[in-house]
Amino acid sequence: MSGRIRNEAFKQKVMSAHDAAALVENGWNVGFSGFTGSGYPKVFPEALAAIIDAHHAKGEEFRIGVWTGASTAPELDGALARTGGISYRAPYQSDPEMRSAINTGVSYYQDIHLSHMGPQVSQGFLGHLNLAVVEATAITEDGDIVPSSSVGMNRTYLDHADKIIIEVNSWQSEDLFGMHDIYYPIGALPPNRVPLPIQNAGDRIGGKVLKVDADKVVAVIETNSADRNTPFKALDDDSRAIAGYFLDFLGNEVKAGRLPENLLPLQSGVGNIANAVLAGLLEGPFENLTSYTEVIQDGMVDLLDSGKLTVASATAFSLSPTAAEKMNDNAAHYRNKIVLRPQDVSNHPEAIRRMGVIACNGMIEADIYGNVNSTHVMGSRMQNGIGGSGDFTRNGWVSCFVTPSTAKGGAISCIVPMVNHVDHTEHDVQVLITEQGLADLRGLAPRQRAIKVIENCAHPDYREPLLEYVKLAEKKANGHHTPHDLATALGWHVRFLETGTMAL
Amino acid sequence: MSGRIRNEAFKQKVMSAHDAAALVENGWNVGFSGFTGSGYPKVFPEALAAIIDAHHAKGEEFRIGVWTGASTAPELDGALARTGGISYRAPYQSDPEMRSAINTGVSYYQDIHLSHMGPQVSQGFLGHLNLAVVEATAITEDGDIVPSSSVGMNRTYLDHADKIIIEVNSWQSEDLFGMHDIYYPIGALPPNRVPLPIQNAGDRIGGKVLKVDADKVVAVIETNSADRNTPFKALDDDSRAIAGYFLDFLGNEVKAGRLPENLLPLQSGVGNIANAVLAGLLEGPFENLTSYTEVIQDGMVDLLDSGKLTVASATAFSLSPTAAEKMNDNAAHYRNKIVLRPQDVSNHPEAIRRMGVIACNGMIEADIYGNVNSTHVMGSRMQNGIGGSGDFTRNGWVSCFVTPSTAKGGAISCIVPMVNHVDHTEHDVQVLITEQGLADLRGLAPRQRAIKVIENCAHPDYREPLLEYVKLAEKKANGHHTPHDLATALGWHVRFLETGTMAL
Repeated sequence: MSGRIRNEAFKQKVMSAHDAAALVENGWNVGFSGFTGSGYPKVFPEALAAIIDAHHAKGEEFRIGVWTGASTAPELDGALARTGGISYRAPYQSDPEMRSAINTGVSYYQDIHLSHMGPQVSQGFLGHLNLAVVEATAITEDGDIVPSSSVGMNRTYLDHADKIIIEVNSWQSEDLFGMHDIYYPIGALPPNRVPLPIQNAGDRIGGKVLKVDADKVVAVIETNSADRNTPFKALDDDSRAIAGYFLDFLGNEVKAGRLPENLLPLQSGVGNIANAVLAGLLEGPFENLTSYTEVIQDGMVDLLDSGKLTVASATAFSLSPTAAEKMNDNAAHYRNKIVLRPQDVSNHPEAIRRMGVIACNGMIEADIYGNVNSTHVMGSRMQNGIGGSGDFTRNGWVSCFVTPSTAKGGAISCIVPMVNHVDHTEHDVQVLITEQGLADLRGLAPRQRAIKVIENCAHPDYREPLLEYVKLAEKKANGHHTPHDLATALGWHVRFLETGTMAL
Repeated sequence: MSGRIRNEAFKQKVMSAHDAAALVENGWNVGFSGFTGSGYPKVFPEALAAIIDAHHAKGEEFRIGVWTGASTAPELDGALARTGGISYRAPYQSDPEMRSAINTGVSYYQDIHLSHMGPQVSQGFLGHLNLAVVEATAITEDGDIVPSSSVGMNRTYLDHADKIIIEVNSWQSEDLFGMHDIYYPIGALPPNRVPLPIQNAGDRIGGKVLKVDADKVVAVIETNSADRNTPFKALDDDSRAIAGYFLDFLGNEVKAGRLPENLLPLQSGVGNIANAVLAGLLEGPFENLTSYTEVIQDGMVDLLDSGKLTVASATAFSLSPTAAEKMNDNAAHYRNKIVLRPQDVSNHPEAIRRMGVIACNGMIEADIYGNVNSTHVMGSRMQNGIGGSGDFTRNGWVSCFVTPSTAKGGAISCIVPMVNHVDHTEHDVQVLITEQGLADLRGLAPRQRAIKVIENCAHPDYREPLLEYVKLAEKKANGHHTPHDLATALGWHVRFLETGTMAL
């Protein structure tokens, strides 16, 4: 044994992943730990997948509901999706196999704001939770759970599940102990909810561990396995250009007296553009920054190292293998600068609005009127999900969205007449940025936005067609607030589906 | 004089509406009081309209930005819109002349969440505020402003405007004094924002009056004029049926143990269906109810009278003339049961999520996947605006939307394949109700929602065509998460625009 299981009762429950997985019954809902590829159970899901396959091979029905924090990894989403045994999935995913199961109609997927998952589970909206499977760094003498590299939904699932399985992963550094901040009152149901006492990104308001009812624990599994972190791509010119426009915008807000010199807490989505923004901050003029976000990426760690960022609050890591090793080796150092919280705290509207978080998220496409699609490809196909972008966008000090102006080598314009799916409405979107430039939509009516978005953000190849759409729409529209020609508003997407390009 | 102006310095500033309006300059932004037809200035806007007309008659440019709490009345929106002199309007309107100015392209309109208007103004996103024109019940000896029948944006506008004009309306009951709860810390900018200390709908956390810098006051006008309240229509069968389904839903939630017996604080939109719900509660089984909402309507007063509702929190009245008279005669009685707050408190995400408000709002149409359009007619034409529906929908315990299943005598189906504009996304909509029935979408993926919405909510005449769309979409879609045929998704609206009906 690894020595990570320090409580006698829990030691008695150690078993193989296979034996633990055999406890699962057809039709169960299972709440797994895991958020952006970190802190998910490493061996239980594959063992469960083998059992599901065996049932299916015998012609027996075996399907489960899979709830997580957010995206996981091939060992969880991939392994289970491949069996065809996921009946329902929430609240976010990004695995190719899982995505395929959703888009072929094998699995139902409910795309839920990450801050809403906690309330929806505890209010009983998603049905009964039969089992929680949660990765831990260790189990203390008192039978408490030391979380690992993500917190996500763990508190909620451990509280609500009938049965609990813990995977204790000795790959995770023991020095993570003390980095987490587990705030229990967030789980209260109305009318017993109280103010969330966070006023600064680094405020610690809870305990270091997750509490479990030991009687509910049916198995403990020992693992020693790295999070499936993927390296970031080298920064490309588009990402650098987008980051540059964003940082200029922030600088101008400071000059105009609207932002303090150390800005306000930063949130940034996951991915290369977000990392480029962080890299830009590293070279930029801002000092004493803070971050209140979902995920700690490589660039955030570099910013902490530089001293430009004083504290980062999130619910999970999403690090490259190199950065993950560094985090593991230096967790005792970083735990004074990083707070990992449950996702219903990291993404809570109350904290985000109070602190005035600066929200910057990626998107698939925006339309000329400022509606944003974060989730769907050509109307029907799910990419990943809305994640926490809605939590930060609706409630932040300002909401920014970024994307290159084209995709598929120019065949797709990411600025379109009408988005094929709306995740963030015109009421919630304030700044759009592509490598072409930035459109500041604050204080503008739809017709004003259209011109600005086309001129500042659209790729030159698509500007003329967009302006022609505007002209046509103004001629055909039944009202001039948001001029649309509904017969052709989605025509660019239709053309792409028919011809492989939006270009005429 | 009416005796309502009890401060000497303010008495010195009394002048005619014409003289006060003559102080306004071309290009100014003016913040007016007024929310759902109550508490708006009664004579200043018409005097200003006359001055604008005179400028226009001389061929001179004269246009202003008009900011309010929400909708006002013909004496404000109507009078000013008619001049063509409104360059920009926010955050909500419902006046026929104003709507026409927006839809003919004369005025720019920005449709803003009512809870966002305060932060956007104070963060400087909407530009400079030159003047605030605010109705008051009285001015105290100390030079404080006693609000009238709405609070809305008044605190923000008085704090931020360069100059202030007060209309003291002796039609408003002096006994309104003490009904208002003006919480000043809500105006703080980050990083100085603090938790909003509301845990129950009736909590009083602020003072009774609005503070003004007397040096900024350039005019005081005396009026004696009723709010332009409109009588409610008699309840029709559709409204009664919708209210019935909603109340059954609440009853079932109580039975399932998900809601306490006295429910959670109720929010309801404005209009006949909302009033039918309130009428239904009057006859229903629930006791000790509370309300945390935007607007106090007739039905809410009846509920207070019955004792079934113990307290109602809002930002404004929206009463029939009869109920308004009753309120005026009995304000001393009602001020113990009604709290009128600034709209950035009445609609604050923090309070709404903490208390678990039950949100129920009207809509124009919903689509089969649960997206809701609250604002646009056939894609381009603005009806009223999103108002506070987003504030309550995103943050409430549950979010419900109601509409009759058809409009225009059946020519329009209010359940469509794809909404022509999205104000509330599929991530935010949980229950849809028409006179046909209720679709509980909690825990459902898009394809599951489609069947439920069609079967439970669509009008029988449109069910078959909707099911046919689903079949077609499943055949044509590039993915089966949200099957759409983008070429025909908006075809029902196109057909209506071309033929006057959505029916084939």
